[in-house]
Amino acid sequence: MNALPTHVTIREVALRDGLQIEAPIPLSAKVELLEAIIATGVREVEATAFVSPSKVPALADAPEFAEELTRVRNSAGIEFSALVASPNGAKRAIASGLGSIEYVVSAADAHSRANVGRGTADATAQIGEIVAIAHDNGVSVEVIVATAWDCPFDGPTPVQRVLGVIAAAQAAGVDRLAIADTIGTATPRRVTSLIEALRPLVGDTPLGAHFHNTRGAGLASAYAAVSAGVRRLDASIGGLGGCPFAPGASGNIATEDLVYLLRDSDVAVDVDLSAAIAAAGLAQRIIGHELPGALLRAGDRIQDS
Amino acid sequence: MNALPTHVTIREVALRDGLQIEAPIPLSAKVELLEAIIATGVREVEATAFVSPSKVPALADAPEFAEELTRVRNSAGIEFSALVASPNGAKRAIASGLGSIEYVVSAADAHSRANVGRGTADATAQIGEIVAIAHDNGVSVEVIVATAWDCPFDGPTPVQRVLGVIAAAQAAGVDRLAIADTIGTATPRRVTSLIEALRPLVGDTPLGAHFHNTRGAGLASAYAAVSAGVRRLDASIGGLGGCPFAPGASGNIATEDLVYLLRDSDVAVDVDLSAAIAAAGLAQRIIGHELPGALLRAGDRIQDS
Repeated sequence: MNALPTHVTIREVALRDGLQIEAPIPLSAKVELLEAIIATGVREVEATAFVSPSKVPALADAPEFAEELTRVRNSAGIEFSALVASPNGAKRAIASGLGSIEYVVSAADAHSRANVGRGTADATAQIGEIVAIAHDNGVSVEVIVATAWDCPFDGPTPVQRVLGVIAAAQAAGVDRLAIADTIGTATPRRVTSLIEALRPLVGDTPLGAHFHNTRGAGLASAYAAVSAGVRRLDASIGGLGGCPFAPGASGNIATEDLVYLLRDSDVAVDVDLSAAIAAAGLAQRIIGHELPGALLRAGDRIQDS
Repeated sequence: MNALPTHVTIREVALRDGLQIEAPIPLSAKVELLEAIIATGVREVEATAFVSPSKVPALADAPEFAEELTRVRNSAGIEFSALVASPNGAKRAIASGLGSIEYVVSAADAHSRANVGRGTADATAQIGEIVAIAHDNGVSVEVIVATAWDCPFDGPTPVQRVLGVIAAAQAAGVDRLAIADTIGTATPRRVTSLIEALRPLVGDTPLGAHFHNTRGAGLASAYAAVSAGVRRLDASIGGLGGCPFAPGASGNIATEDLVYLLRDSDVAVDVDLSAAIAAAGLAQRIIGHELPGALLRAGDRIQDS
């Protein structure tokens, strides 16, 4: 019924989205977690963010961590990326040796203002400058549309606002696009609807999706996205990365839970399930509190392990 | 793409599957929880089980609780059912005034023996006797095929074993059928596959599905089932009902999380979301430990609440 792809690229975001709301951990612990993530076989890792250190203290060590990434990339061939929120952040990421950046634009005005201090229109207007800076340095750019379904302040995001950001990104010549369920409210039907609405504008540009499991529907939404043609999904080891608007709630979809689901769907991924569970266990020990990932507790099917 | 139904019947199973592995709670607490569940608007409630009190002490009060159900049914018009594992259990349920019973047959031999002390063939052979007892008393019977996807001992369940139980149930004239993901290993693609394989045998007999969220894919599997034509789903307030094989793991899919997902899919249910969240909160207070339901922590979308 659904035309599932033969392969989906998982981007591991535990080091960025996962850690950003946690208390800062030492650089050595980040490197330990990075090594466990590399051992999963994943090919893309969103590793840090070049944003205000005062707003995101957990990622204030981005320049130092980037040095570690440069060392690793040469041996492992993994694509490391960093999230940025401004042209200045893009310059800092590039100066630190990152070969790929994600620029986040929130489609909801109120969330955009709360997040980066300016509305969607102003944030969108900077896409061109960021793409120029990146491409001048041989760096690829993805535009991530945050609050693509709902805003914690504005409610449901009109699809026209998402289309507006996507159109600007395409006009600027971005390399990739993504839509993010920032507060974990998406559900399968709405995922399918939005992707279908975006398709004409997205065209052949690779489109990713980023889900949180805050309301339990993260994996269902991810499966709907893949069924609707998305070939790139963000996920976080152990489900690290809660939402600050919902204390105690689940964070990103858990990498290992996603791998488990896709394996049964005959969708190949680059991530080894056992190694992902091991990395999730390490993340839990480093962070020091229970993570929401299901396989972390239940394990793989008994007969397979 | 998917032909979603306009309505899905949710059967609330917190009082049976949810409570059965918990320490026994007082009858008065059960009645309090029952009242909160009734307040959700749900039309079908699996309320208890007539099985060995020594094996399931939490449900040893089934006869006493059934008296409460009889009193409630007359005013609320809800269909209460009880799970049974033998002809004797069926007789006890009927003698206690239940108007609907579920007879569980495990499609996996090892699980069947561990669960009820006899293999699948012997358990299947009793379907006819149980149907006869029930129908002689004007009571409806559902056959639930347990371990329909995987057995904790035998591994993946061959579809022929599921078909065998379904065929026997149909020959005996059961009123309804259900397939249960007993250990929480199912994923969307496997759900779709099994339902398609069963369809010719199931015909017009109502088919339900029962999922656990043990490996995070419970809601995704439920959505796949609905997309594949299933119109009946079991769910448990708060996700009450962990699996004894995976301590700490999630239990049944949470009623409120399911309602949230289906609402967005324009699938009507009889359960009110706010009332379901309230009932989940009560269940958590009564049980005395955190339940896994996501909306219990995150709540409904902010703008809607």
